[in-house]
Parts: sequence; structure tokens; C-alpha cells
Amino acid sequence: MQTLYVELGDRRYPIFIGSKLNAQELLEPYIHGHQVMVVTNTTVAPLYLDHYVAALEASGKTVHTCILSDGEKYKDIEHLNLIFDALLEAGFNRDCTVLALGGGVIGDMAGFASASFQRGVYFVQVPTTLLSQVDSSVGGKTGINHPLGKNMIGAFQQPQVVLADMSQLSTLPPRELSAGLAEVIKYALLGDVEFLDWLEQHMEALVAGDETVLATAVYKSCAHKARIVASDEKEQGDRALLNLGHTFGHAIESYLGYGEWLHGEAVATGMVMAADLSFRMGWISESDLERTKKIILRANLPIVCPKIPLEEFLAYMAHDKKVLNGQLRLVLMKKLGQAVITRDFDVELMKQVIVANQH
Amino acid sequence: MQTLYVELGDRRYPIFIGSKLNAQELLEPYIHGHQVMVVTNTTVAPLYLDHYVAALEASGKTVHTCILSDGEKYKDIEHLNLIFDALLEAGFNRDCTVLALGGGVIGDMAGFASASFQRGVYFVQVPTTLLSQVDSSVGGKTGINHPLGKNMIGAFQQPQVVLADMSQLSTLPPRELSAGLAEVIKYALLGDVEFLDWLEQHMEALVAGDETVLATAVYKSCAHKARIVASDEKEQGDRALLNLGHTFGHAIESYLGYGEWLHGEAVATGMVMAADLSFRMGWISESDLERTKKIILRANLPIVCPKIPLEEFLAYMAHDKKVLNGQLRLVLMKKLGQAVITRDFDVELMKQVIVANQH
Repeated sequence: MQTLYVELGDRRYPIFIGSKLNAQELLEPYIHGHQVMVVTNTTVAPLYLDHYVAALEASGKTVHTCILSDGEKYKDIEHLNLIFDALLEAGFNRDCTVLALGGGVIGDMAGFASASFQRGVYFVQVPTTLLSQVDSSVGGKTGINHPLGKNMIGAFQQPQVVLADMSQLSTLPPRELSAGLAEVIKYALLGDVEFLDWLEQHMEALVAGDETVLATAVYKSCAHKARIVASDEKEQGDRALLNLGHTFGHAIESYLGYGEWLHGEAVATGMVMAADLSFRMGWISESDLERTKKIILRANLPIVCPKIPLEEFLAYMAHDKKVLNGQLRLVLMKKLGQAVITRDFDVELMKQVIVANQH
Repeated sequence: MQTLYVELGDRRYPIFIGSKLNAQELLEPYIHGHQVMVVTNTTVAPLYLDHYVAALEASGKTVHTCILSDGEKYKDIEHLNLIFDALLEAGFNRDCTVLALGGGVIGDMAGFASASFQRGVYFVQVPTTLLSQVDSSVGGKTGINHPLGKNMIGAFQQPQVVLADMSQLSTLPPRELSAGLAEVIKYALLGDVEFLDWLEQHMEALVAGDETVLATAVYKSCAHKARIVASDEKEQGDRALLNLGHTFGHAIESYLGYGEWLHGEAVATGMVMAADLSFRMGWISESDLERTKKIILRANLPIVCPKIPLEEFLAYMAHDKKVLNGQLRLVLMKKLGQAVITRDFDVELMKQVIVANQH
């Protein structure tokens, strides 16, 4: 087992990464009070809910559960309200803990519920997908979608502890494992070209679900994210680097409708677009662009998206939270493994890139 | 005009208190970005909305409005969502400001919306009732109700600036002015017996709506609250003193249904119950109790509540957020003008007090 600390002063918290982790032993020191609401979904519940309820009860906790429908399309205000209903029906107080057992959707919803219930209670994350292990369980961004935009309503809420158990990835569909690898590749592209070398050497083992290799990838990814988050918790500056591929990706997701493409798939194609624009701006070489596409392809991820009318693509991009005073900012690569947040790009080249990287 | 600063480090903000304040001049330095969403209700909109929209537009802002139904019963997740709808339909970004123009309900809802929209945008308060001027616009508590409890979902969100204009109190129904006076009296009872003397001298002028005397009462009340909030923003300790009368009061409000009694009316009777229990515990004298009742009566507020079955009253009290590890804590008076948060009271005496102070 490896332990990584996210350094946020008095809200410093550990991420435990390994296989077949002892949930009772690892969670117990981090759960305040005696009431725990485990929020999970209909897919994860039959696989892992009993295990965690038993571990918490063995620590003497009063455990209630809230099982939501599975899918991004349920990440809305109505389903968020089901968590509040469960907390209030259980009679939970301000000293309770909300534990997210699931992927990014569950983590985002349970996290926002924990931030808002009684104006803030404790939060614990047990991410069960690779994507949530390397991305959404680190950094405290929580929230729900609105028909007019993704993650438009939410809060910054840091967990007390994160438990990332690789053995749970064995039940993850291959498509979702690949979607998680998109975010892993992102860390290499935005800030660590040596990690890109490592990924090129280990991509087959990662796709095959090798738990030891996956643990290393999760550790390195979380370490990158933790470092960036610690330096810029509220995304005033460098934290926006983590959105490499996301502004293009959100447009793809929004156009197709949440749930058609997985988030990681949209980010994968979005990273190709960001790399292509970086290439056309003259910042990275053609071989850097090809290397980017190749590692994404080897992770079984798409490098082009379906045909989307340019005007609609641009309209969705304009809804992005990175728009500041009406001006679009993008995360691009100044060189391979070194991203920047910039508004100094050629909009015409950006339009070419969008059109060029579609079916 | 008087100015009071709430000292919260880098979130320090001013409260401007006076009559016929210059909104444009006072708000302009505190509004970041160019987008402002004015959230108000159907009662306040015809009176003051045009004035503030004009003031903001004169500062060059893009102003949109969101007019909600008036009343505590609309302080729910569905009506909160109308604010998000308005923000997204207006295409507002992360650098926008949500301005609450109204009483406590509007302040709580607009504040929570501003805390959650894009995980937090700017917030400005223009409280138009005495209650919201002396209480809910200071301290950053925002939120909505849930069928199972009041203010159960929310966030701590500090405004950039508060504008408390006494001239707007001229359109306030006398019953609502009295409800605001309940919170003014609370500050005297919990921590300032000299302020109680002052209130005894000026209660007639306050009830008559004298703007100069009201401004002094608002200033002194906000100063008390600001001092307590600055020392304990997240209610880990002393801030709970501000709930004098509120645990009893919430039970009355919850039983009667939100909106039957005004919040201030329920708090008034709740303060009588807290004083009566303090008297029965031997902490304050019978004349202190009578003095408490008399100032509340002079503010045209109720000192007894309708008949509520004891078991139901207790059940509603148990839902209070001050319950810690299942144990009820109450704010009582160790002496007149000196409140404490305590779990060391006689539960049988508490039951007697509840029964004794009903019709």
C-alpha cells in the first residue's frame, strides 16, 4: 500500500492506494461522530456495499445507505435531493459523515451533499473507478449538472480520507478503464514527459488491468493532481492546467448528451484537439502530436469525435467555466509535457482543429 | 451613514447603515466583473427593483433579474433551482455577482445560489427587512428548508458588501418590524445588558419606525453579531450563542408550519422559554424574567405560543442542528445579558417551561 497526502493545511488528508485494502482499519481514524451515510449506485451496491457497511459497523458506526440510479444523467438536483432526504429521514446531525462509494458521479453528488447538508458535514471518498481514483477523488471539486451545463452547481469540499482499492477495478468494464486512462495520460501530457515514457512502456499492462502497474499509475496521477491542488485549491491559477482537453471535451459531451460518450473518452479527443492546436500554433512538433495520438489510441480511446456543426461546438465551448470576462481561455501545450493556460491562440486555427478532428 | 466592518481576514466586508443611501456609489467598488443577477421577490420588486437595476446599470453592469414568490414556504430546492436557471439562461460566468434584494428568505436563497453556482461566485446583500438587516445579512449563513427541517441545506457564504437602508423599512408591515425587533432584543439578552437599558428607553420610537433610532439599533445589533461571527465563523463555539431562543422557536415554527408565525415571533416566545428555564435553573431572577417578557411585549411580540403537544415539541427540538452526538444543547442565560451554550440543564424543568408558556 502507498500513502499520499494532499497538503491543504488543516484540511490535509491521505489517499491510500493499494489492493485489497483493510477498509475498517484505514477508515476508522478518519470518521468523526458515529453516523455514516454510504451513498452508492445500483451497479456498485451489489458488488461492494456490504463489505463497507460491515467494515463501518465493525467500528461501531451507525450506518445508513442511499442507493442512486447509475449514470451521469442522474447527476441532477432531483437525485441530489434524495441524499438530503436519506440524511434527514435517518435523523443525521452535523457531526455525521457522508461516504461516497462509486465513481465520479457518486463522488461529485455525495460530496456536494456533504458540503451542503447542515452547511457542511464530513466527507469520505471510496472511488471504485479508475477515473474517479485518479481525478475526481482528489481536489475537492463536487457538484451536479444543469440542463444548460455540466458541473454548473457545486462546492469545493475536501474529503477526510480517500481509499483507492485497485482490486475493485477488476469489475470495471474495459471501456471505463480506458476512460480512466485518459486522465492518467493527461497528467503526463500536461506536466511530466518522463511519465509519458513510463506509460508508453506499461500501456499494455494498464489496459489488461495489472493491479500493481495500475497502483503506480494512480499514485503518480494523484501526486500530480495533489501538488497542483495544494498550490491552487480554488482554481485561481495553475489548477486550470488540469483541464487539458476538457474545454473541447465538454463541448463534445454536451452536444452528444451526457452519457453517450464517457467523460474520459471526450477528454481523450479533447486532448488530441488541444495537441493539434498546439502543433498548428508551432509550439509542439508533428511527432509530438503523433505521439499524443498514439498513446491515446493504445489506451483504446477515440482520437476523433462524431461530426458536430462548428457553430454548436463553439457555443458549447463558450459555456465553459474557464471563460473569464467573456474571453475563452484554453489549456494548450507549449511543449510536450508542459501545458499552459492561455488566451493567446489563433481562433481560426482552433476552428480548423475542431473540424479536422471529426469523423 | 455608519459603516461597520465584519473582520474575516481576506473576506472582510463592510455593512453600510443609513437612510436613503446612494446605492450606485456604495455598491460599485464591491462588484467584480460586469454581470449582476438581482434576486428579489414579488413584494419587493415593485417597490425597489427599478432603483437598484438603474444604480447598477449606471455603473455599466449587465443586469438580469430573478423574481421569486414571496414567503418562507418557497425557500426550497425547487425555487433555488429557478435562480440557477436564471443564471444559466443569462449565460453568466464565474465572475458574476448575485445580489439579494429582500428579506431573510431572499438573502438565504440568493446566498446559497451564489455559493453553489459554478462552485461559488460573488454575493451582495441588500436586506429590506429589519430582521434581515440585523441578522441574516451578517454572518454568511445561507440555505434552504427541507420538509423535515429548517435551513437543513446550505453553505457559509460571505457577501462582498451589505447595504442596510432604513428608508426601506417604511414599507415594512408593522408585524414584520416587530419580528425584526425580536432579534434586536436577542443581542441585548445574550450579551449586552446596557443595550437592554437603551432598548427599554427607545422601544416606542423603534416600533413607530423612527429611522435614526432604528439605524442605531441595527448598528449595535450588527456590531454584536459581527464580533461573534469574526471569532467563530463556522459555529464551532460561541457563534451558537446567537441561537438564543431559536431551538424552542424552531420547534414552534416547525409545528405550526413555516409561514404561520414569523421567524421573529417564534424566536420571541423561544427567548421567553429560554429565560424561564434560566430562571427555574436559578440562574436569573424572577424580575429578570419579567423584564425579558416586558420588553418583548412592548415590541408587540408574543410571549406564549399556541398549545403544542409536548412530545411533538420535543421531537422538533431534537431535529435542531445544535444536537451534538445525540445530546441537546440549549442557549440559556447565566445572568441577564450573559448567555451560555449548555447541556447542563434539567430536562424536566425544560418540559415544564414548554408547557407553562403556551396558551
